[in-house]
Amino acid sequence: MEHLPDTITADIIKSFKLIVGNDYFFADAESLQHYSRDETETLSFQPQVVLQPATPQEVSAILKICNEHRIPVTPRGAGTGLTGGALPHLGGVLISTERFSRILNIDERNLQVTTEPGVITEVLQRAVAEKGLFYPPDPASKGSCFIGGNISENSGGPRAVKYGVVKDYVLNLEVVLPTGEIIWTGANVLKNATGYNITQLIVGSEGTLGIVTKIVLRLIPLPKYDLLMLAPFGSLEKACEAVSAIFRAGYTPSALELMEINALKIVSSMVDSHAMPVNDQIEAHLLIEVDGNDTEVLLKEMEQIAAVLENYEAGEILFAEDAQQKEELWKLRRKVAEYVKMAGYTIEEDAVVPRAELPKLIKGLKVLGKQYDFDAVAYGHAGDGNLHIRIKKEGIPNSYQNPEMDIIVRELFVLIKQLGGTISGEHGIGLIQKGFMDIIFEERQLQIMRDIKKVFDPNNILNAGKIFD
Amino acid sequence: MEHLPDTITADIIKSFKLIVGNDYFFADAESLQHYSRDETETLSFQPQVVLQPATPQEVSAILKICNEHRIPVTPRGAGTGLTGGALPHLGGVLISTERFSRILNIDERNLQVTTEPGVITEVLQRAVAEKGLFYPPDPASKGSCFIGGNISENSGGPRAVKYGVVKDYVLNLEVVLPTGEIIWTGANVLKNATGYNITQLIVGSEGTLGIVTKIVLRLIPLPKYDLLMLAPFGSLEKACEAVSAIFRAGYTPSALELMEINALKIVSSMVDSHAMPVNDQIEAHLLIEVDGNDTEVLLKEMEQIAAVLENYEAGEILFAEDAQQKEELWKLRRKVAEYVKMAGYTIEEDAVVPRAELPKLIKGLKVLGKQYDFDAVAYGHAGDGNLHIRIKKEGIPNSYQNPEMDIIVRELFVLIKQLGGTISGEHGIGLIQKGFMDIIFEERQLQIMRDIKKVFDPNNILNAGKIFD
Repeated sequence: MEHLPDTITADIIKSFKLIVGNDYFFADAESLQHYSRDETETLSFQPQVVLQPATPQEVSAILKICNEHRIPVTPRGAGTGLTGGALPHLGGVLISTERFSRILNIDERNLQVTTEPGVITEVLQRAVAEKGLFYPPDPASKGSCFIGGNISENSGGPRAVKYGVVKDYVLNLEVVLPTGEIIWTGANVLKNATGYNITQLIVGSEGTLGIVTKIVLRLIPLPKYDLLMLAPFGSLEKACEAVSAIFRAGYTPSALELMEINALKIVSSMVDSHAMPVNDQIEAHLLIEVDGNDTEVLLKEMEQIAAVLENYEAGEILFAEDAQQKEELWKLRRKVAEYVKMAGYTIEEDAVVPRAELPKLIKGLKVLGKQYDFDAVAYGHAGDGNLHIRIKKEGIPNSYQNPEMDIIVRELFVLIKQLGGTISGEHGIGLIQKGFMDIIFEERQLQIMRDIKKVFDPNNILNAGKIFD
Repeated sequence: MEHLPDTITADIIKSFKLIVGNDYFFADAESLQHYSRDETETLSFQPQVVLQPATPQEVSAILKICNEHRIPVTPRGAGTGLTGGALPHLGGVLISTERFSRILNIDERNLQVTTEPGVITEVLQRAVAEKGLFYPPDPASKGSCFIGGNISENSGGPRAVKYGVVKDYVLNLEVVLPTGEIIWTGANVLKNATGYNITQLIVGSEGTLGIVTKIVLRLIPLPKYDLLMLAPFGSLEKACEAVSAIFRAGYTPSALELMEINALKIVSSMVDSHAMPVNDQIEAHLLIEVDGNDTEVLLKEMEQIAAVLENYEAGEILFAEDAQQKEELWKLRRKVAEYVKMAGYTIEEDAVVPRAELPKLIKGLKVLGKQYDFDAVAYGHAGDGNLHIRIKKEGIPNSYQNPEMDIIVRELFVLIKQLGGTISGEHGIGLIQKGFMDIIFEERQLQIMRDIKKVFDPNNILNAGKIFD
């Protein structure tokens, strides 16, 4: 589906400037450099021009021109993606959604919010929390990522284990199609059996099927209280076994995060991490949160979960005593990715397996580590089987598209598939994982996805070469 | 997309018999009559032959032949649908999934179940409940409908208000494509950002994109207790206002059903309905259930919800005292549809609006009733804005495709669209609502659906003419 784009002529540039205004057209070196990267390591591609439209009509006008002239278009939110979804690897036009920054309507009567895509996720969460409402999905980048990007990647975060991921909150989307038409995908209702679920097709489609310009999300009442505890384990596998035991015992924590000790050792070598004990008797920590409206019930739940953990040889459990201690623990958890990256574990994989298969995943990772002589760290959303794994091998540059690294990653992904899992739980496929899609899908399945892409984007102008070739 | 099918020749019949065996091939008058109807009123179409395959491979072999010879195929579960989705209106082959009747694996470690599509929903629910697990979606027909049909229609039921609908539980599907290939749509994981969400495209596609042969559902821990109360209201509008007030106050009942008094009067004229008081001071009842693991918490929640109801002029609230009383109340609620149908309110609409717009829907219905001189009854899942409405007009046969009835229904649906709602919350579009799709979707949106249909079914053999023409 590759194609050679037409040149962006002076006439086309003139049209772009007329559409967005001179102030929102960029072709200077600094801007092109800025928009050439996202949070994906080691990759950088410059667009030819950057446009910052502010209305669906402007987006539509741009796409019509690009569609007519076969100009590649890359949509971009806040650029916090980890799989290169927002990288303009074919040059062309980059459309930034940063001016779509308004929360349009918090509908307290219906527990819904209508927002533009360029709103920072945490800003949205706070705005609805002020009305006693809750939008749960909380990717690690929530302080900087856009809600529109979250829609594109079907993001998750720690709370997904109890509250689900982005797809579980999207009711309706306004989308500008690559051919320029503006459509709504559904209706602002909680149940919908009216035709194909185009809404859910757009969620997680990584900006390849259209550019989302309005989002209707359902909200839930904000839980009043939460409690947090940290449990150390002498055995990583026992910690993983404890994870599924908690659910089998009938509890659904609002977060159930795992940090394997190699990751914590790195963190503790860089910052004061006294909040999380690190020593040679510990192989992993579980960070467990419960939330609800009744503190007595939550305290009881915590005790009962602690009792489950003891069956799996948990060490001394720390119960966070106040908001400050909770915040410290969460901060450490959130900082893990940043610090292990600084320590040279550059690439973050996004494995997800059925929850009870985590011990097998960990065992398999160790076997692979010995076979290929690499170090690995693992952490993440154990409660829903979604572990972030980072690999470092002496002498091999830790970058995408390194053939030796690819062999290791492929073996890891084959194991994940064997365990009933898949290669991305919440980061998406983008540019850097598409070479591994054949592990998960047969050609017929990929062909269906390519054909659906053609339905929306007959000229393959929008974010082409992402997810699949 | 209409086409004239080839004749089903003697050779083709021979092939069908070889595939499924003589015992599972039917072309006798009685069988054709039996499979000519579902629970959709007044419509009947006979297939030419009925096949009962038992494996995906058999389904695949049948579809390959039908695809080659352009023979229309209609998939059918238990035939409990209300919109004609399983009606073989083009003749041809009817594939019944009734022999796909095995629950294949209840995975207690991962809280998942893998099942064939021909399992009765309630049988599946009981089987997982025996392991302490919960599959919440509970359509009114749960005692007779198939889980496969529920997938096709994205069914709901009373518990959807707290637990969501079918789509919220489907992790992965084995699907036989109209061209005969057998694919899996996803992975058995709780989070998935690996390519387009084909799973959610199949859910609710009403058997037009493929025939589902295996289903992987996520389960949750079974709540230990539930409490039920019945609140009468002197004003139907006040009852509707109370519905959204409950959620705004921070409560999420496990069921929140509305029964408007016209419906209850009909029920009480036919059976002893002493459990639900009916008199001239009452315009509506709300049936409200809460569930959880702690009876004290539930009792407190019930009291607090009751306090909310009092602000909306609720009458004397009845708290169900034991399992028997609960069962009586639920039985009455479930029987409403049956009895109002017997009273001549034949056609059931499946309106869904944002929850807080219910009072406007009720008001609008009354205005229309005066304008067109019809009687209406309304009942259903008020908690998620999904009301079933039945209309009866003196002198007009209460059947689909009656032009006068169509005018009324169209006006009602236009109102629903204006309120931000849509024409089906849980029944699907099938054969009988497709004439109203233009109210909800513009031509471009419908074209996307038609083009997606072509991706899966290039020769338009599978359940053609359902959802759209």
